[in-house]
Amino acid sequence: MRTDIDIEISEVGPRDGLQSISPIMATADKKRWISALAAAGLPEIEVGSFVPAKILPQLADTGELVAHAKTIENLQVAVLVPNFRGAQNAIEAGADKITIPLSVSQTHSLKNVRRTHEQMYEEVVRIRALIDTLPKQNRPVLEGGLSTAFGCTLEGQIDDSVVFHCAEKLIASGCDEVGLSDTTGYGLPTQVRRLTKGIWQAVGKDKLTGIHLHNTRGQGLANVIAAIDVGLTTVDASMGGIGGCPFAPGASGNIITEDLVFLLEGMGLKTGVNYERLLQAREVLRNSLPDSVALYGFTPDAGIPKGLALATPQ
Amino acid sequence: MRTDIDIEISEVGPRDGLQSISPIMATADKKRWISALAAAGLPEIEVGSFVPAKILPQLADTGELVAHAKTIENLQVAVLVPNFRGAQNAIEAGADKITIPLSVSQTHSLKNVRRTHEQMYEEVVRIRALIDTLPKQNRPVLEGGLSTAFGCTLEGQIDDSVVFHCAEKLIASGCDEVGLSDTTGYGLPTQVRRLTKGIWQAVGKDKLTGIHLHNTRGQGLANVIAAIDVGLTTVDASMGGIGGCPFAPGASGNIITEDLVFLLEGMGLKTGVNYERLLQAREVLRNSLPDSVALYGFTPDAGIPKGLALATPQ
Repeated sequence: MRTDIDIEISEVGPRDGLQSISPIMATADKKRWISALAAAGLPEIEVGSFVPAKILPQLADTGELVAHAKTIENLQVAVLVPNFRGAQNAIEAGADKITIPLSVSQTHSLKNVRRTHEQMYEEVVRIRALIDTLPKQNRPVLEGGLSTAFGCTLEGQIDDSVVFHCAEKLIASGCDEVGLSDTTGYGLPTQVRRLTKGIWQAVGKDKLTGIHLHNTRGQGLANVIAAIDVGLTTVDASMGGIGGCPFAPGASGNIITEDLVFLLEGMGLKTGVNYERLLQAREVLRNSLPDSVALYGFTPDAGIPKGLALATPQ
Repeated sequence: MRTDIDIEISEVGPRDGLQSISPIMATADKKRWISALAAAGLPEIEVGSFVPAKILPQLADTGELVAHAKTIENLQVAVLVPNFRGAQNAIEAGADKITIPLSVSQTHSLKNVRRTHEQMYEEVVRIRALIDTLPKQNRPVLEGGLSTAFGCTLEGQIDDSVVFHCAEKLIASGCDEVGLSDTTGYGLPTQVRRLTKGIWQAVGKDKLTGIHLHNTRGQGLANVIAAIDVGLTTVDASMGGIGGCPFAPGASGNIITEDLVFLLEGMGLKTGVNYERLLQAREVLRNSLPDSVALYGFTPDAGIPKGLALATPQ
C-alpha cells in the first residue's frame, strides 16, 4: 500500500458495478471514467473481469481497459478472473492484481463458476505456476477472494471454520493473499471482527488486508467501522453504489465510494481521494449510463458537512 | 432500562418522523401504529411534541396519544417539549419522559425555538421546579437534548467544549440526563466516541446513555457501532426512516428502526423487538400514509439473512 494513505479504497464499480446492470457502457466512456477515478486519487481500480463475453458482455472489453489503465501513473490495476483461462488473459494484458473468487459456500461455487472447491484450488495452483514463470518484477499479486464468507442465500449461515479452512487452502495453493467478501450482504460488524481475526490466526496477518462489503441491509458502512477498528486497511467500494452479484438473488449494491470517502476522511483517515474530483468522476459515470440506471449515494446530495476538514489535502 | 434487553431502541417516528412530512396522520391511525410498535416490543416511543398546533399541526393530538400510550403496559411514553409551557402540558398528560432540546449551536437555537441558551436553562429550572412538586413516583424523567452537537448547517463545526459546557449547564439546571443528538446528520464515529467520553467526564457516566442519529450522509448505522462500542445503551430510530428537522435544511432522515433491529439483533444484542411484528407495525404505518410519503429501509426488502438467529427470542 502507498505510504501516504491510511486506508486504501479499491474502486470496483467498473467490474462489480457494470456487470450487474444490463446496459453496456461504451469502452471509450469506461476509459474516461477510469481516468477520472484515478485523477480523483483512487489508488486501485478493478477495471473488469476476464470472463467469456457471452456470459458478461458488459465486460468484454476488459483487456483494452487494462491496457488503458496501465498508462495511468500510480494506479494499481486489478481484475477478476474465474479460472486459469481468465488468469492467462489477465497476465497477458498486464494486470497488477488478479483476484480469483472462491465461493466458501460450495452450492454457490457450483452455481457461480460451476466448480467445486477442489477444482478451484487446482486452478490456483496452475495460475501460481504460470505467474512464477514471469520475471519477478512483472508478477501480479494473486488474491483469493473468499466469497459468500458471511453467509449464502442458498446455504444460509456458513460455519466460521469453513471460511478459515478455505483461506488456508487458497494460500497453500499459491495465493499471495486472501480477501474477505460479503457477496450476499449478510455481514455484521461482529462477524467482520471474528472472521478477520480467525483468518489472521490461520494464515498470518499480512495475508488478509482487504474486505469487500455490500449494503444490502443498510449495514455496509457499519461493517466498515468494524473492519477499520480490527485493522483491515483496504476496502472495496463502487461509485454510485451500483453493483451486486447476478447469481446471488437479493444481493444488490456495493457500498458507495462517495459516502465511504466522506466517512473515512471525516474521521481523519487519509484515502488520497480529492472529493471534488470524485464528484467529477461521478458526472462522467452519470453521463455514460442511461437515466434508467440509478446512482446512489447520500453525500453527493447532502454535501460534505459545513466546515469539515478532510484528512487528505484537497 | 429494562433488564431483559441490551440496547434500548427509542422509536421516534410518531414525533420526529411525522413532524417532517406534510400529510397529517389521523389520530386513530397513530394510536393503532403506536400500539403495533409497542406490540413489536419497542420499550420506548416518543409519541409527539407539545408545540403550538399552528407550528406543527401534524402533532396537535399529542395529549391524546400520551393518554393512549399510557394504557399500554411496559411502555415508556416519551414526548418532546420546546419550553415550560410544553412541559406543563406533558406533565398534565402524564408522560414518563420529557425531552427538552437545546441547540448547542446558538444560531440554530434562535431559529428553532427562538431562545438563547440562557433562556433555555431558565426554562429547565422552571420545569424542574414543577416536576419536583409532584409525588416522587409520578415524576417524569427530564432529559436535555444536545441538538446540533455534531455540527450545524448554519454555524458549521461546533467546538467540543461548547457541547460539554451545555451538558453541564443542562444538568446543573435540573435535567436528570442529557442526550446526544446529531440533528444535522454531520456525525462521524470518531466524534460519537469523543463527545460521549467528554460528556461523561463533564457530568458523569449515568447522565448520558442515549444518542439520536440521522442518516443524512449514509453514516447512521456506522455511528451506531461507535455508540455501542463506547458504551451508550439507548439509540433513537424512526420506522421507515421518515423524519428530520424542518429547520435544518438538508437534515433529513432518522436512522431506520427496521435496519437497526437487524444490525443489533444479528450481533447478539437483545432489543426486545420481534422482527415479524415490527414489519406488521410498518404495514400499519404504510396503510396510514398516502403513497407519496416514501418509507425507507433495506432489511424489509432484503429480509433477515437466511438461517440467522436473532438475539431476542422471536
